[in-house]
Amino acid sequence: MSDKDPLVIFTPSGKRGRFTVGTPILTAARQLGVDLDSVCGGRGICSKCQVTPSYGEFPKHGVTVAETALSEWNAVEQRYDDKRGLPKGRRLGCQATVQSDIVIDVPAESQVHKQVVRKRAEVRDITLNPSTRIYYVEVQEPDMHDPSGDLERLVAALRKDWELPDLTADLSVFKTLQETLRKGEWKVTCAVNLLENRIMHIWPGFYEGSIYGLAVDLGSTTIAGHLCDLQTGEVVASSGLMNPQIRFGEDLMSRVSYSMMNPGGDAEMTASVREGMNQLFDAVAEEAGIDKTLIVDAVFVCNPVMHHLFLGIDPFELGQAPFALATSDAFSLKAKDLDLNLHPEARTYILPCIAGHVGADAAAVALSEAPNKSEDLVLVVDVGTNAEILLGNTEKVLACSSPTGPAFEGAQISSGQRAAPGAIERVEIDPVTKEPRFRVIGSELWSDDPGFLEAIAGTGVTGICGSGIIEVIAEMRLAGIVDGPGLIGSPEQTGTERCFLDGRTYAYKLWEDPETGQVISVTNPDIRAIQMAKAALYSGARLLMDKFGVDAVDRVVLAGAFGAHISPKHAMVLGMIPDAPLDKVTSAGNAAGTGARIALLNTEARAEIEDTVHKIHKIETAIEPRFQEHFVNASNIPNSVEPFPILNSVVTLPTETFNTGSEAAHQGGRRRRRRS
Amino acid sequence: MSDKDPLVIFTPSGKRGRFTVGTPILTAARQLGVDLDSVCGGRGICSKCQVTPSYGEFPKHGVTVAETALSEWNAVEQRYDDKRGLPKGRRLGCQATVQSDIVIDVPAESQVHKQVVRKRAEVRDITLNPSTRIYYVEVQEPDMHDPSGDLERLVAALRKDWELPDLTADLSVFKTLQETLRKGEWKVTCAVNLLENRIMHIWPGFYEGSIYGLAVDLGSTTIAGHLCDLQTGEVVASSGLMNPQIRFGEDLMSRVSYSMMNPGGDAEMTASVREGMNQLFDAVAEEAGIDKTLIVDAVFVCNPVMHHLFLGIDPFELGQAPFALATSDAFSLKAKDLDLNLHPEARTYILPCIAGHVGADAAAVALSEAPNKSEDLVLVVDVGTNAEILLGNTEKVLACSSPTGPAFEGAQISSGQRAAPGAIERVEIDPVTKEPRFRVIGSELWSDDPGFLEAIAGTGVTGICGSGIIEVIAEMRLAGIVDGPGLIGSPEQTGTERCFLDGRTYAYKLWEDPETGQVISVTNPDIRAIQMAKAALYSGARLLMDKFGVDAVDRVVLAGAFGAHISPKHAMVLGMIPDAPLDKVTSAGNAAGTGARIALLNTEARAEIEDTVHKIHKIETAIEPRFQEHFVNASNIPNSVEPFPILNSVVTLPTETFNTGSEAAHQGGRRRRRRS
Repeated sequence: MSDKDPLVIFTPSGKRGRFTVGTPILTAARQLGVDLDSVCGGRGICSKCQVTPSYGEFPKHGVTVAETALSEWNAVEQRYDDKRGLPKGRRLGCQATVQSDIVIDVPAESQVHKQVVRKRAEVRDITLNPSTRIYYVEVQEPDMHDPSGDLERLVAALRKDWELPDLTADLSVFKTLQETLRKGEWKVTCAVNLLENRIMHIWPGFYEGSIYGLAVDLGSTTIAGHLCDLQTGEVVASSGLMNPQIRFGEDLMSRVSYSMMNPGGDAEMTASVREGMNQLFDAVAEEAGIDKTLIVDAVFVCNPVMHHLFLGIDPFELGQAPFALATSDAFSLKAKDLDLNLHPEARTYILPCIAGHVGADAAAVALSEAPNKSEDLVLVVDVGTNAEILLGNTEKVLACSSPTGPAFEGAQISSGQRAAPGAIERVEIDPVTKEPRFRVIGSELWSDDPGFLEAIAGTGVTGICGSGIIEVIAEMRLAGIVDGPGLIGSPEQTGTERCFLDGRTYAYKLWEDPETGQVISVTNPDIRAIQMAKAALYSGARLLMDKFGVDAVDRVVLAGAFGAHISPKHAMVLGMIPDAPLDKVTSAGNAAGTGARIALLNTEARAEIEDTVHKIHKIETAIEPRFQEHFVNASNIPNSVEPFPILNSVVTLPTETFNTGSEAAHQGGRRRRRRS
Repeated sequence: MSDKDPLVIFTPSGKRGRFTVGTPILTAARQLGVDLDSVCGGRGICSKCQVTPSYGEFPKHGVTVAETALSEWNAVEQRYDDKRGLPKGRRLGCQATVQSDIVIDVPAESQVHKQVVRKRAEVRDITLNPSTRIYYVEVQEPDMHDPSGDLERLVAALRKDWELPDLTADLSVFKTLQETLRKGEWKVTCAVNLLENRIMHIWPGFYEGSIYGLAVDLGSTTIAGHLCDLQTGEVVASSGLMNPQIRFGEDLMSRVSYSMMNPGGDAEMTASVREGMNQLFDAVAEEAGIDKTLIVDAVFVCNPVMHHLFLGIDPFELGQAPFALATSDAFSLKAKDLDLNLHPEARTYILPCIAGHVGADAAAVALSEAPNKSEDLVLVVDVGTNAEILLGNTEKVLACSSPTGPAFEGAQISSGQRAAPGAIERVEIDPVTKEPRFRVIGSELWSDDPGFLEAIAGTGVTGICGSGIIEVIAEMRLAGIVDGPGLIGSPEQTGTERCFLDGRTYAYKLWEDPETGQVISVTNPDIRAIQMAKAALYSGARLLMDKFGVDAVDRVVLAGAFGAHISPKHAMVLGMIPDAPLDKVTSAGNAAGTGARIALLNTEARAEIEDTVHKIHKIETAIEPRFQEHFVNASNIPNSVEPFPILNSVVTLPTETFNTGSEAAHQGGRRRRRRS
């Protein structure tokens, strides 16, 4: 290339170089290391190498681009445009050749390592770098004068055209290899696992479809799967399923007990969850309208007990101190080794666990929320039956888990229920009239809006879900219906007839069905249960803050499917989480699932999280005396109504109590708490 | 270590160094890199580190060794001696400590990389370096203050005590890991696959047994397995089995045809051979009295069609030009992927193929006989239904295969049979009287020895096996009963009434049963069949010699179970192999099986043979016009009777023919040959 050769400038990378006239843009891009996609290797078949040439004056780049800077639109481009439509201004990089100085823009979707955009502003996009990619090649035919295996010639073609290292092939590939090569007349498309340098699949000719991966969040209660297109990074289908292990026990410890009490019980639960997994995969593939055998990779996140049961390891040791995991390492396995019916050679990856009670789901949250990359001190709380808590910044990250119990999921609550249509999810109580209004899942209307009854006619008001419970108790506290220690006042004390005697304590009536007369109320035991749960959560967070040597955090991230629905304001009123400016409390949605998706779409993130997990400092709440101390102090409901941010629930001792004869009930509640 | 510290000299390595008083010999050996075995890591449990101290004057080493040069015989040594017996003069390297200058001999059996001695002088011993070794370790108990998985602490112990890299564990290990660690009170023995850095098995405490590997020669007709102790390299049991695929066709091409004609036929044959393999493994494990799950590695050699069928690849393409293999690469697979019931995580290794007709069995022969390391030009002939032929020296190695057909195995021969008791295996014919004497398998007596009839009474004389056929025809030629072109003379021409008219040609009666009157004879069609077979073999060898540019070879190695039984003299009389000094023609026995054993016991040999195979130049006989030319010229039986070495069969044209009316028969024979 001489100084007289045309200059080719790629944007947005800014890479530039001189190329002889007639050089295809794709060739120039490859030589400069510009990230321009191609599956067919420049044969004008795949159209992945679309680029947008720019014409005119470019003083910034020091070039003037003539209209004739690229070769003329050709028949291959016309054929593709006729068949599929090429966006205006686009050219195919493998067809358009350099004629004179030119500026070429590589649109985002033409990049191999595309950015998969995440909706939330505070987190980084995912760089697409999956385990498996597809490549089209033309293979040399066999020749008796120079005998070599069909695979060896295929591998040579992949090495020559794609600079892939010397690949091997999975055993099942050999079953179709020879037939496919001949059927495709020595032109084939290969799916190559780049982590293991193995050919996983082979299609005759140019394969126009895509390949897929699954990001699976295996929870104690539900299993959620997201099917992603590995070529675009897009989620093409999502589906959820109750974890069929529920029949062996609602919570983790009851499943561990089941395994302890029943010989072979662990194997039973392993089979059960794997079977459920396969049902989920069927559902998600059906939703996307793809063949399940196109799923070549799957990433799993789960808590340690689920991790062990899914892998076929008896969780026995996780049920007793010192809570030793069989292993905390990440696993890379074949799907068939886990009895999963995907592509016969599909790979799986299970994220590492952090500790005996802090699982791969917490690792996934760490990957999604990256506290280790945060300049601010961030508290990440994944709310569930077992809460996983991370606290850290670029300096260090601490982790613990806290046994919140199932109250946040509506269990142990008199009118509690799972989040489903008919469940109260949002609540407001007028501080003057003490009258409530609420919304139920499945309707946009508030209960005092006209037409509410008609809107919910299908379901009625069936109960209160987790986020509703948090809101109603926080609102009751704000309206002065419940006091700091957690007692509901009498009608006289609160000034509303909605408070009624329920056994030895008072309850607050939220709803009475005008037709059936069914009452949905919040009882004093309900409040105790939530107090226990939120105290556990708060104590875990506070313990990490002690260990970190801080009294406040810069921001709070609420994670988990449930966390996504919690109102930060109400969570702080309740004292679930330490104080932070309200605008610094955000919801990360299902961060564990997102972490799984990141590890699926970007294999570099796997090494990254394995490394991060090794560096996370684990705190075992069970052996920390301060955890108990915090727990005892944290059961009160903070007293600061306005203005936000409220004061810390531990620092600010409650002052407002009802001076009534309910002292006995109050004591009873405390005794109950201590027994818990 | 100062100059005043005692000097420790190890023999036979000659490694030496100074160590402070009290250093265990094992520690000194490790620091100097002396190859001294240990499984328990110096804890006085395994006794693998036995050494022999020498006392007295050692002018050669410049030291005088006092009787007190080592610490006194201790209780651990006494206990082991009482229990198992320690050879006289031996000490345990982990117990005996350095007191003053000392000379220590490491006996062969105490070396990690022992030499496994091969019986034949011309080949090198095998360096023991198996895929899997066992290690004893003591593991740190779990601690809630520093949570880590049980595996991570086990791996740390293996790293610390054995300098092993960071290992992972096979999935099935996790099923027993936690229980085993606790059962062994945190002392365990691990089997570690060093090629994949994976823990394959874990035993509580110190495991006193061994682990095993299989070397399997998968032939078209028989499957032979040798069970080897991976700690000593010894063959502990051997067993053979008819290849159950025989029901789908006697020879390879009929099995390929079966797969072509029957949809799913290849899968049927794959299942059949794997099933047979499992039967063989049962038999061999039973013979050795070991649990089959102690077999952790298996190496297979086979021809290309067997290779494909065993791996589950349709051999279709091997049945037609250009005879393209699916792959010629070596395979490393889990045994369970091949439906083999060994240790659940057992590995297998299948040697690479050389070309479409030159398989992993030929590669194994190359590994065993190492023509690439021979200074002499060596011709290696593996005789079978398909003969594999290698010719080479350190400069280069050529390979081809030649379709000899099943005649050498007794098929297509009127009185032919497999090698079994009752079969004639050795023959001599008196050149004057033309009277034969022979021996049958199962008896040491010759047929003219007194008591022969009684000795063979159990079986009788049942037929002629392959080696017998070669001998009888060669002897007939030497006695002038058959002429150069291969015609048997009449009684008049030969002067013996043993020649009798059999259709349009003569036959030679070798035996008539005195009781039943059953006759075993050699017919002219028998001679034609052997002529075809030997001509194919010879032509292949000759073609390689042409390609190498030589007219003679320095030595000849006859390989294969059959090759081991061939008399070199008779093979040369027959013209099966090119001329060579008779003392330069040796038998390698089952060289393919030996190659499998080498690859099993020394994993470095795997990389070596993969490399060698890439460098072997393959000659496809089917497209070489000179092969046909040689074949046509090679069907005669050479005329040189005495002295050996005989002249080359191609160079020396036959001159002695019977001028009789048998010309028509002769022509018929030739026509028949051409049709073959």
